[in-house]
Order: sequence, then C-alpha cells, then structure tokens
Amino acid sequence: MKLATLNDGTRDGRLIVVKRDNSAYAFATNVALTLQAALDQWDALEPRLRALAEELEAGRVQSRPLDVSALLSPLPRAYEWVDGSAYLNHVVLVRKARNAEPPPTLKTDPLVYQGGSGTFLSPTQDIPLVDEAWGMDFESEVAVILGDVPLGTQAKDAEKHVKLVMLCNDVTLRNLIPNELAKGFGFFQGKPSSSFSPFALTPDELGPAWKDGRVHLRLRSTLNGQVVGDTDAGPEMHFSFFDLLQHISKTRPFTAGTILGSGTVSNEDRARGISCLAERRMIETIEAGGPKTPFMKVGDRIEIEMFGPEGQSLFGRISQKVVKP
Amino acid sequence: MKLATLNDGTRDGRLIVVKRDNSAYAFATNVALTLQAALDQWDALEPRLRALAEELEAGRVQSRPLDVSALLSPLPRAYEWVDGSAYLNHVVLVRKARNAEPPPTLKTDPLVYQGGSGTFLSPTQDIPLVDEAWGMDFESEVAVILGDVPLGTQAKDAEKHVKLVMLCNDVTLRNLIPNELAKGFGFFQGKPSSSFSPFALTPDELGPAWKDGRVHLRLRSTLNGQVVGDTDAGPEMHFSFFDLLQHISKTRPFTAGTILGSGTVSNEDRARGISCLAERRMIETIEAGGPKTPFMKVGDRIEIEMFGPEGQSLFGRISQKVVKP
Repeated sequence: MKLATLNDGTRDGRLIVVKRDNSAYAFATNVALTLQAALDQWDALEPRLRALAEELEAGRVQSRPLDVSALLSPLPRAYEWVDGSAYLNHVVLVRKARNAEPPPTLKTDPLVYQGGSGTFLSPTQDIPLVDEAWGMDFESEVAVILGDVPLGTQAKDAEKHVKLVMLCNDVTLRNLIPNELAKGFGFFQGKPSSSFSPFALTPDELGPAWKDGRVHLRLRSTLNGQVVGDTDAGPEMHFSFFDLLQHISKTRPFTAGTILGSGTVSNEDRARGISCLAERRMIETIEAGGPKTPFMKVGDRIEIEMFGPEGQSLFGRISQKVVKP
Repeated sequence: MKLATLNDGTRDGRLIVVKRDNSAYAFATNVALTLQAALDQWDALEPRLRALAEELEAGRVQSRPLDVSALLSPLPRAYEWVDGSAYLNHVVLVRKARNAEPPPTLKTDPLVYQGGSGTFLSPTQDIPLVDEAWGMDFESEVAVILGDVPLGTQAKDAEKHVKLVMLCNDVTLRNLIPNELAKGFGFFQGKPSSSFSPFALTPDELGPAWKDGRVHLRLRSTLNGQVVGDTDAGPEMHFSFFDLLQHISKTRPFTAGTILGSGTVSNEDRARGISCLAERRMIETIEAGGPKTPFMKVGDRIEIEMFGPEGQSLFGRISQKVVKP
C-alpha cells in the first residue's frame, strides 16, 4: 500500500491512497482525514486503507490523476523525528578527514539525534538558504514511520512497530555544526527543515527488499542533473531499523507517527558515489589534501529517488531547489 | 486565561478553560476540541476562548469541579520541544564541579537542545525508572508555547509569538549523559519523557511578573515534602524567551504548538536552593570534594509549583512519584 498527503491548504494535508504505478490516487477521507489520524488508529484503519488501495488498483473506485507537486511530505509535521547514523562508512569518512579515530563504540552503540519535526518541507518545495556561507548539504536517507513503541522494546520485537517506509532529504548546514557541537547540546541550528519522499509505503510493498530491518535497494542522488550517488541502502546499514528502535526506546516510549531515519546512506565502494556532499569533500581531502566540491548554492537542485527491480520509482522523487528566502 | 487538557481517554485529551482560582472548569468543545487545534487557529479562536473564560469567572456558564489528577499535560504530545539553558549560574556550576571554564560564548550564544515531544507525562503521573543507576534527576523550568514562528524572527518581534506559559519537569538521566555527550549527537537517551504543569496561562494572566520575556516569580521545588528550591525565575534568566526564540528561528521556522523551555531555573544566591539535584551535588563537590545527595530513587516524589503575589498557585502543581515500570 502506497500512501501520500495532498496539499489542501491545511497544516496536515489530506490522506490519499496512491496507485502502485504512481499515476492516480483516491481520497481516503472515509477512513481517515490525515496520515497522523490513520497512524493513531492504525490497527483498526490499516485494513480499510488496504481495501481501498485494492479497489484503486482494480479501477473500482473514483480516482484522479496524481500531480506530485501537489503533495506535502507524508507527515507535514510529526511528533518526533529521530535520525540515526547507521552507515559506518559515513562515520569513518568524517573522522578520517580530520585525522581522528572512529569512536570506540562505533559498532556497538548507535548514533542518533533528535531533529526538529514541526515544519517539514514538501518533496518538491524550494529549500530556503539565508546565507551560502552556512554550507548547505543534502543527505539522502531511508526513513520509517513508527506506530506506538513501548519503553524498552527489543530489536527482535521491533518489526511490528514499523508501519511505513519513505525517503528523506535531511538538509544540513555543515558550517554551523562545529560551533553547535562545541557547545555539546547537539546540532540544533545546523539542521533546518527536512523533507520526505512523495509516497510512504507499507514494508510489504518492498517485497524481499525489506529484510532484517533494512531496505536492500539502491538510493539515487542527482545533483543539478548529474547522478552523484547510487548507493546500496542494504548491507552496510550496520544498525538496522530494529536495532535503532531498541536503542531509542531504552529510556522512553514513542507515539505513533514518530519518524526514524537511517542516516546518510553510504558505501565503502567509492564507485557507488555519495549521498551527501560532505562525503565527497572528505574523499577529496583524503586524496588531495583538501575539498574541491563546494556546498550547495542558490539555484542548485537535488533529486533523491529509489527504484524497484522493474525500474519503477517506489517512493516518488524528492526534487528540491535551493533558493534565497 | 487559564487552559488545561482533560484526560478523556484520547491521545490529545480535551481542551478546558479553568477558573482563575483553579476550582472549576468549562469544556471548550464549542471552540476547539484540543489545545493543539486551538493553537492552529489561535488568532481566530483566542477571543472566543477568552469570552468563555469570562463567562466561567462570572458563573454564567456550566462548570464542573476541577480534579487536577484528571489532567494531562496541556499538550500531551507536541510537534517540538526545544529546551534552553538560559540561567548561567546553572551552566557555571556544572563546569566548576569538573574544574572546567564556562564556554567562551556563555553570555552571547544560547545553549538549546531538541527534546523528545511525543510522549509527555501528565503533571501527576508516575515517572518510570528502569534502573536507579541511570541517576534520575528533576529539572524545574518555565516553558512557553509558541504560535507560528517565521524563519529569522528577531527578539524584538518575538513577544507576539508567545501564546501560553507553563511549568516543566524536564526529567534527566544524569549518568547516561556523559556517554551521550561523548558521541556528540546530543542528550538522546539521557532525556526521558518530560511533564508540564496542569495549567497553561496566557502571559497577561501573570500581570507585571511577565516582563521582557521572563517570568519574575519564584519557582518552588519540593522533594519528598521538603522545599529544596524557591528560585527566582526572573532576573538571572540571561537569555529571555525572546532571545531564545531569535536563536532557534535562525535557520528554520516553527509550527504553532512548539514548546520552548528556559532550562533549569538557577540563582547565584545559594539560600534560594536548587531546581535540580545535579546542582546540589555540584555545590557539595565544590564545598566538600564530592557529592553527598543521591539522585532520585523509586518512591521519591517531586513537586513543582509557582505562586502569584497573593499566594495563589498559578499553574497548579506538578507532583510526580518515581516508580519501577
């Protein structure tokens, strides 16, 4: 089942069910007005949404042609956005560039940060950049939407709490981060509003590509029309979404609608390219003594997309241009 | 105007208007079902809520006796919870205890962290503590609920975005924090679910005590029946809520319903006591070489309250017992 949120002028938009080929949609109004409302009663409403999705595939319900530019992020605002950094190659690269060792707990203790979740950009919305000196970067990620997660959930029991899968552009202001980190309170000003893919899919929609709490597919990042990354989101995700879920629920529970991110998808094989500019700059630093690639500038466009085995765009395309606000 | 959220078995509870003497309430159902719904249309709905509050004071509307134990936190879940650390005495004490200098930007660059906002405890709800070795602490704070805040809001324009004021118990797991800080991603596991005061007040309800973005009143913390702190929340709040609002909106906007906290209220005058156990332990360390006061244990009760000039409890009492989950 493929869900999305139509921009109807309200803060939380309107829940729609999307045809598998992304061509058309049907309003889910009779089931739930918004995706958050559906998540709040997921066990009761999921079967009804699935029934509607089947009717839509079969052409037995009124549908309308889909215009991706009319969509908001599946959750235009969420109660929590927790982002991991589960691809160790990304962590190792960052440390190498500044001649530091990876943390001793790299492989045993996941890195996660609490992100702002009140004002997500839509998948095709311009990204406002006040000052190019802030060093804007994209980060191409996989993210899941959780149901209610009890305190102390274990990885082995985590799968049932993963309700939907989507992609994320976790926008980052690289040059603001050192000052924020020096204060020890996290990334705050370094993380402006993120955006998510047009469609959120139930994990079964991914077939065998959804395995062990990982999405075993390629994530393509295209910058100004040039493919800069075609990274595999599967095997190198050291901590699976189930591991991350166990980690975050150690000291508190989570409400339905919490979004959990994978962190920047990153592969050791450099032929796969990058899912953020910071990595390319690190590789340049390691190989040539300093970065050559600039961060994003006004006018740059980043596109993020993931394809199924038949080449179909599973989550739709994030396509955002950087603009002066 | 004094607002609260009644536990009606739903996730977000039901908005009520509370009499100034805390004795009775009226349902706001005809105006908005939940506090978030009211905040989403605040300009249109605030006058109607104020009219209802006047009717309630005058005894011209049906009211019911108020039972504080039936209340949830005013926002049982919020889209963002951003907490500052605006009382410099608190920051200085923490550093002194470990022989470190305060950060050079202490007085010019506010400290804020992004907190979890999906599962707040109610003001009288037990605080689950899995392991006493985690070092549970309370933190008595003032917090404000914001309306929509545009990107790049300046302190001088901030006042109109502050819609409501309340108190907070920002529960902290002290012994988990060093490991979290060492990873550089913030406090994540060190901050379980916070709770807020029974009532949220419009700033005008505080009269002259609401001045320059600060609440100039005493905040009382009572641990196991003993007053441990009666700190002044006013003059020593180095960064006002307006300053904090400018700081957080530098790189992104905020949605209505975002909660912004002051950080632990702390005074240089030690006769005023403490608003968290970590401070007392730091003072013991400075004076006697090591901490004597233990962190919170199962069975401990923390109460947090603020009184007006006539001794009335403005926000109601946070009263929470630590329990084994």
